[in-house]
Amino acid sequence: MSRSIAIVGGTGPLGKGLALRWARAGENVIIGSRDGQRARAAAATIDKEVKSGHRANGAENAEAVAAADLVVLTVPLSGHAALLKQLKPAFRQGTILIDATVPLATSLGGRASRVVHLWQGSAAEQAAEIVPAGVSVVAAFQNLSAELLLGEALVECDVIVCSDDPQARQTAAALAEKIPGIRALDGGHLENARIVEQLTALLITLNAKYKTHHAGIRITGLPDLPPQQSS
Amino acid sequence: MSRSIAIVGGTGPLGKGLALRWARAGENVIIGSRDGQRARAAAATIDKEVKSGHRANGAENAEAVAAADLVVLTVPLSGHAALLKQLKPAFRQGTILIDATVPLATSLGGRASRVVHLWQGSAAEQAAEIVPAGVSVVAAFQNLSAELLLGEALVECDVIVCSDDPQARQTAAALAEKIPGIRALDGGHLENARIVEQLTALLITLNAKYKTHHAGIRITGLPDLPPQQSS
Repeated sequence: MSRSIAIVGGTGPLGKGLALRWARAGENVIIGSRDGQRARAAAATIDKEVKSGHRANGAENAEAVAAADLVVLTVPLSGHAALLKQLKPAFRQGTILIDATVPLATSLGGRASRVVHLWQGSAAEQAAEIVPAGVSVVAAFQNLSAELLLGEALVECDVIVCSDDPQARQTAAALAEKIPGIRALDGGHLENARIVEQLTALLITLNAKYKTHHAGIRITGLPDLPPQQSS
Repeated sequence: MSRSIAIVGGTGPLGKGLALRWARAGENVIIGSRDGQRARAAAATIDKEVKSGHRANGAENAEAVAAADLVVLTVPLSGHAALLKQLKPAFRQGTILIDATVPLATSLGGRASRVVHLWQGSAAEQAAEIVPAGVSVVAAFQNLSAELLLGEALVECDVIVCSDDPQARQTAAALAEKIPGIRALDGGHLENARIVEQLTALLITLNAKYKTHHAGIRITGLPDLPPQQSS
């Protein structure tokens, strides 16, 4: 049986963009939302856009998590901890949680060009503290332009994948590279998410300065890398 | 009379690499060091490598600062605050200080893949607190590979320039683009140096993972930019 990818917060622009790209790549995605009805509507839109058969389902967040092998979290920081606590009983043993959350200061009424500092160091480390034992947390996808994902163009961006579980990091990296244009890079331990998350605030500054919504990053100077092993 | 660029800590690899590239571009550089003798020896090496006449002088740090229109600071964090306090009387009114310091945890015996958090937010903001009134602080050049600068190849890297003084930011950006391959980007206010400085720790992680010393960044998705106005 092929795997399912739940996208918690999947009706937001980043979640929907990722779901669309993965559905196009032949993955089965489950859009999760607080509102199951909204989730199913978003899934129907994705199926319609992808035009290659039924790839997307919608469900309430907890139901989506319970049905998935991989869970991708794309929610604002303001709801991050509370939602994960609520979803905790839904996680299966061995699930990989990929956290794309950025601790933007907007979560506390501040500017999107600034971040707040979490005691744990990063949103991903906050997630790792909450999820049940046996769930591996990966930080990735924080630096992608939702607008680019929602379109058809190549996504000219590196995805820096941080995790303390090398196997989970590898799975997330392969998933990233299912999106045309993306190169996944091994960003080492989960604590390095502190830097990758903050980078998004800088990209938001650059978007404002250069009047775009497409700023992303590429790391230069690396040797030619083989693509991530598919899994 | 043409301007002079003092490079405080100019006998280290980053300072020497920048001096070499700017001397090649026809700028007059003053290598600054605690040890004037060592500074003059480094300057002589640069003149020899550049082969286009006398471009580099060496001096003790305070003397270098006093003689310069632009001061570039490339020192380890461990000496950053003390050195700036010591150099404070040497700054001329209107000097621009470009700070390339990264608050790596190595300054406190930790790992180069980690940073320490300064109360002011960033090394550049620490510098801004210390320099005399009338000196503008710019944060830039933290993400460049010293090894690349010391060679001949294009430096495929963006330099994100942060300052609260738009004129100083512009001057630093034009100076960055004198180095072949570099694109300067307007990173907004000085406080954004917090993110740019930390990025270096991530580049150090990537250098270790991918067995290179050349990791750098490019921002993707920006409209085609005109080169910075030369100044």
